Amino acid sequence: MVNSIVEKIVNGDVRVVAKLIRDIDDGAPGTREILKALYRHTGNAYIIGITGAPGVGKSTLVDQMIQGLRMDGKTVGVLAVDPTSPLSGGAILGDRVRMQRHSLDEGVFIRSLATRGQFGGLTQSTRSVIDVLDAMGKDYIIVETVGVGQDEIDIAKSAHTTVIVVVPGMGDNIQAIKAGIFEVGDIFVINKSDRPDALNTMNDLKAMIDITRRRFKKEGWEPSILMAEAAINKGIVELLNEIEMHRKNRKTLSRETIIRHKKAIARNELTDMIKIRLVEEVLNHITNSLEFKKHLDCIVDGTKDPYSACDELLSAKLNLE
Amino acid sequence: MVNSIVEKIVNGDVRVVAKLIRDIDDGAPGTREILKALYRHTGNAYIIGITGAPGVGKSTLVDQMIQGLRMDGKTVGVLAVDPTSPLSGGAILGDRVRMQRHSLDEGVFIRSLATRGQFGGLTQSTRSVIDVLDAMGKDYIIVETVGVGQDEIDIAKSAHTTVIVVVPGMGDNIQAIKAGIFEVGDIFVINKSDRPDALNTMNDLKAMIDITRRRFKKEGWEPSILMAEAAINKGIVELLNEIEMHRKNRKTLSRETIIRHKKAIARNELTDMIKIRLVEEVLNHITNSLEFKKHLDCIVDGTKDPYSACDELLSAKLNLE
Repeated sequence: MVNSIVEKIVNGDVRVVAKLIRDIDDGAPGTREILKALYRHTGNAYIIGITGAPGVGKSTLVDQMIQGLRMDGKTVGVLAVDPTSPLSGGAILGDRVRMQRHSLDEGVFIRSLATRGQFGGLTQSTRSVIDVLDAMGKDYIIVETVGVGQDEIDIAKSAHTTVIVVVPGMGDNIQAIKAGIFEVGDIFVINKSDRPDALNTMNDLKAMIDITRRRFKKEGWEPSILMAEAAINKGIVELLNEIEMHRKNRKTLSRETIIRHKKAIARNELTDMIKIRLVEEVLNHITNSLEFKKHLDCIVDGTKDPYSACDELLSAKLNLE
Repeated sequence: MVNSIVEKIVNGDVRVVAKLIRDIDDGAPGTREILKALYRHTGNAYIIGITGAPGVGKSTLVDQMIQGLRMDGKTVGVLAVDPTSPLSGGAILGDRVRMQRHSLDEGVFIRSLATRGQFGGLTQSTRSVIDVLDAMGKDYIIVETVGVGQDEIDIAKSAHTTVIVVVPGMGDNIQAIKAGIFEVGDIFVINKSDRPDALNTMNDLKAMIDITRRRFKKEGWEPSILMAEAAINKGIVELLNEIEMHRKNRKTLSRETIIRHKKAIARNELTDMIKIRLVEEVLNHITNSLEFKKHLDCIVDGTKDPYSACDELLSAKLNLE
């Protein structure tokens, strides 16, 4: 059963992929076993994160990037985890219609995630869907996020290249992006660069990047800043070239550095996954146990304080020697 | 050491209480043992939650309530967990100065919490500080929250009487209050009731209360709606009387109902406490273990998928049979 699903996904069966993504989004049981079996087919796609505040034109940029990658013969998976994205059903009709031009192209697979679970549930679903798009054989996976929460920063950390999009004349716009996201940005795009103040924005960005770089030095890559007007397809070729440069640059890193990067990503992902399981499954298990009910009775009749009850329940349920 | 601290707190030593509250807020080690020992001295204070959007005049209302309770000879502890409250350092000078009138009164102890930890850390700190104010012997504890997040709803659930404050002419204001908070409201106060639209607001409130009541029936108490102008001390006596009515009403409930209520509160508190420990301590324990490092290496060299690594780590560390 699991094997036949995995085989269909690896062969690019769009209906099976779509169902699995829906199941991941819904937290349906059984998806975990499929993801385990699917995992050995992952690791081939190049993952690009696109992040920025609502209204900076991320979707238009993604739309043009798809076009550019397709002209180059590459297949593309797109995952929108931005609630303001037309892909996620949150934007104006014009954007949505424009995106439709890729809907009949078999080399493009576009999906969005609806869930906004607590405690990094979104991050977890996103990573699982990336695994699915990777296993189905897409050359590039573009993940569009809105870049305001910790979830988005965590997602950006999992991308091979992270592109931060801003627009001119919005100092606030840059401020609105969480400081943490600057640390993970590899390429910065000033979209709608025909607007006044584009150069000031470039200077603001440079200053901001300098500040964050001092705290967090990425080896062998100086973040670049590009100008673009995605609506008229200006700057897209340059962006795709820069992404390619970053990709090649990664290959020049020493084996130790690459392994250290991989390990950092894996550590983040595994830690997040354990955290979610603790809060969802382990917590439920404890609160549904007979011991929990007994301790509760003791608290209510005043023979036990909740702090001790908590300690005792945890030490009974955990092997933390 | 713990015993002497507990004794000082029970005897109302303000300096020791202030230090413990700071330690709780900072998450300092050792506070937990003090809280355990302190717990048997709690359960005597009457806890009033005051919740509402920023700008509705909660702090002014609390200030007048303190005055009213003091005139009645009661001691009062106040805890502000609202970042916009003058008590928390977030409001205009006038409010702050007004509050100062209680600062020399030994029967009043006012503190605010600064922390906004993840995963209900604020809720946990708030409950611990309530325990401290309770143990130090305050008759009434007023907890001021801003009423917009799940944290605040959880805090409101721990109060004996929850007062929701709104102002007229702000349909949005009512909307801004999370629906969940209506379910826990015992008394609704329309502050600044000299403003136009106060009667419309009353009708809106009645409708909103009716809707939520259908989902969540509180036994033996019909939520009341009061008008007030806290700035000129109008409606405060009526509010304090209504709180007293609610308090007396609780005493008319059957023993079974009271125990059920107590149990519901204890269940919430214990569940939250376990959740925080899981995410903070248990997660750290697992990610710092040798097994975690081994699994990480396997993920990086491709011999294990992260889903299986997560399952194996959890089952090794947990007794969840």
